[in-house]
Amino acid sequence: MTTIDSSVHDKRADETSDESTPLPETGVAPLVDGSKLIGDPRDSAVVRASHRVYEHLIAMFAPGMIEAAFDLGVFVALADGPATPSDLAARLDADAHGLRVLLDGLYCYEIVQRVRAEDGEDLYRLVDGMAECLLPGGLYSLAGRIGYDRAIGWDVWRNLADHVKRPARGADGDYQANQLSAEDYEQVARGINFWAPPIVESLANLLAEEEGWKGEADRSMLDVGCGTGIYSQLLLQRFRGLKATGLDHPRIVPIARGQAERLGVRERFEPVERDFFTEEWDTGQDLVLLVNIFHLQTAEGSEELMRRAAQAVRQGGVVAIVDHIVDDETDDQSIQNRFFRLFAASMLVTGGGDSFSLADYDQWLDRAGLVRTALVDTPMHRILLARRP
Amino acid sequence: MTTIDSSVHDKRADETSDESTPLPETGVAPLVDGSKLIGDPRDSAVVRASHRVYEHLIAMFAPGMIEAAFDLGVFVALADGPATPSDLAARLDADAHGLRVLLDGLYCYEIVQRVRAEDGEDLYRLVDGMAECLLPGGLYSLAGRIGYDRAIGWDVWRNLADHVKRPARGADGDYQANQLSAEDYEQVARGINFWAPPIVESLANLLAEEEGWKGEADRSMLDVGCGTGIYSQLLLQRFRGLKATGLDHPRIVPIARGQAERLGVRERFEPVERDFFTEEWDTGQDLVLLVNIFHLQTAEGSEELMRRAAQAVRQGGVVAIVDHIVDDETDDQSIQNRFFRLFAASMLVTGGGDSFSLADYDQWLDRAGLVRTALVDTPMHRILLARRP
Repeated sequence: MTTIDSSVHDKRADETSDESTPLPETGVAPLVDGSKLIGDPRDSAVVRASHRVYEHLIAMFAPGMIEAAFDLGVFVALADGPATPSDLAARLDADAHGLRVLLDGLYCYEIVQRVRAEDGEDLYRLVDGMAECLLPGGLYSLAGRIGYDRAIGWDVWRNLADHVKRPARGADGDYQANQLSAEDYEQVARGINFWAPPIVESLANLLAEEEGWKGEADRSMLDVGCGTGIYSQLLLQRFRGLKATGLDHPRIVPIARGQAERLGVRERFEPVERDFFTEEWDTGQDLVLLVNIFHLQTAEGSEELMRRAAQAVRQGGVVAIVDHIVDDETDDQSIQNRFFRLFAASMLVTGGGDSFSLADYDQWLDRAGLVRTALVDTPMHRILLARRP
Repeated sequence: MTTIDSSVHDKRADETSDESTPLPETGVAPLVDGSKLIGDPRDSAVVRASHRVYEHLIAMFAPGMIEAAFDLGVFVALADGPATPSDLAARLDADAHGLRVLLDGLYCYEIVQRVRAEDGEDLYRLVDGMAECLLPGGLYSLAGRIGYDRAIGWDVWRNLADHVKRPARGADGDYQANQLSAEDYEQVARGINFWAPPIVESLANLLAEEEGWKGEADRSMLDVGCGTGIYSQLLLQRFRGLKATGLDHPRIVPIARGQAERLGVRERFEPVERDFFTEEWDTGQDLVLLVNIFHLQTAEGSEELMRRAAQAVRQGGVVAIVDHIVDDETDDQSIQNRFFRLFAASMLVTGGGDSFSLADYDQWLDRAGLVRTALVDTPMHRILLARRP
């Protein structure tokens, strides 16, 4: 693992040389040229509608191409340096024409860059950051998330109608209805670390500016359902006097411990095997953090979680929630709200909760005796801060 | 069929009333808020890369949600008028919570509009044009395209790696290597009519402006691989002196005939059962049209097709090609070029051709004795006009 990491890191260093290919700013590029949608105004609404829906249908091309390249070993091969389709065909025992088509697709998605050849085949190289993103073992690798798609995701989305008809549900009184297996959870947990850096940057700024946190002061935090522990670990790097306890499943704890070691914060990060619904939480905390926990619960489970968080935090301390918090009052179709609503569909399948609204969170806060002090957008989540008065 | 059409048409008329929900201008909305991608510059490239790739992976949500709603009968139900999730649950024998999540997803994709309720459940209604787009039977319906996804598409994209390793190929000397079955071709052909209106608008303008075509003049055209005949039929509506012959598979000819009747051009449109590689083409044509035919062929087959087109057109007449013509010389990553390259991957599976480059087309034109006179962008294709000198 360490070997892969360091080679990836060297690769990334290479990529930031003069020959580097900077990542474009924006997300998904359009595949329909709307400026050319001209014609009979009587047909206009339906023709526009059909182009829009078609563009959504062919969005399936993207995971298809990316995951095919992953499975074939294209990213591992390109991490060694630029290559032609024929080079890759020989190394990967695949067809050169098929690889050319696949690489051109990845080029469209700006995952690889294409270097035109004067004569003969073009060269393809990974865009900056893509090696660490697409190879296993990197801190912010999506390999686990891709593994989840390969094992589960395609079936889930293809058969979504079945899950809409009969959503998976926990038994009555089940707080945590989510039925994702420990194996799947482990794989996914490793594959979503990439969300953490901009979220922690915002959260740390909030703690510094709103709560007066300084780098060296002694403080304690509890990371409930910590997963790999990435959120705590990045906070520990920023606040040198902070100590964190992480609670999670026995299967996850060793992963969190190993990652804390890797990030140089092992002595201030203690992951503990604990069921956070049935077992006690450490109390008197300066900060209780819950990242992507609420959306996995039922409404009843969420209320109970909030009550437990309020009990664990010291008076004047902070409860920080990072989740899909739908805020219809500001911009109903904001990027965040859209993603939250879409993500809720995957909860139908695993039997978990929902993307709850800000009104839901405010109700649970109120019943737990907590007061909301901030709500901040991040790229794909919102951070809610609350204080115990 | 007629009954469905007229009800759909009435519905569309209703939708353009005061209460209508205009379709937004642009395509796929972002699901990552790039403006919030802040943090440690050392992590910046990989964190940006991971957010970009993740956004592509979750693009699978869109066909999943749209096709689930199609299968469940949500669109047929909403074509009757706005409904709440509970209404739909009762009508469709599904779960109200599941339907609420699904409808919220369709709202994110701007396929349905949501009307907030003061109290109780929100109402959901189809956005303008969506009924005709998403119900079977409409002229520009995507139902056939969705049927293709349900039958074939999901498997194809999920298993793309297999097709990259061993692309389907025709035997040596096969001109048309494409192995899409007649049944699948029929379904798809019915599901891609929506491309035609803006393309025909551009093509008709070119013929009027560049070739001096007037509405009433007697002219003849040959539509090679006509499918439903939509391109000819819309041209016939515009040019009242034009007569068209369509060539296609015996299974498709009755569909083309029926649609010509429906569009009021039956007496000037004659679809003929003919294998356009082995059988003769009618000659002396003012226009030979080939829409989405070249990308299904091998390079050898394409050259032969062009030769046949040159023989069929009269001296001074026009060969018009609508296809995925990659033009790297102008804007390499234009919307059109991107779509063409991505679409090429689906050809790996059915054994067809490729998205050929403008240089390829120019070579075939040259060998056939044709001269290119125009190259025009449409929303998802390019139109190439050539003249026989």
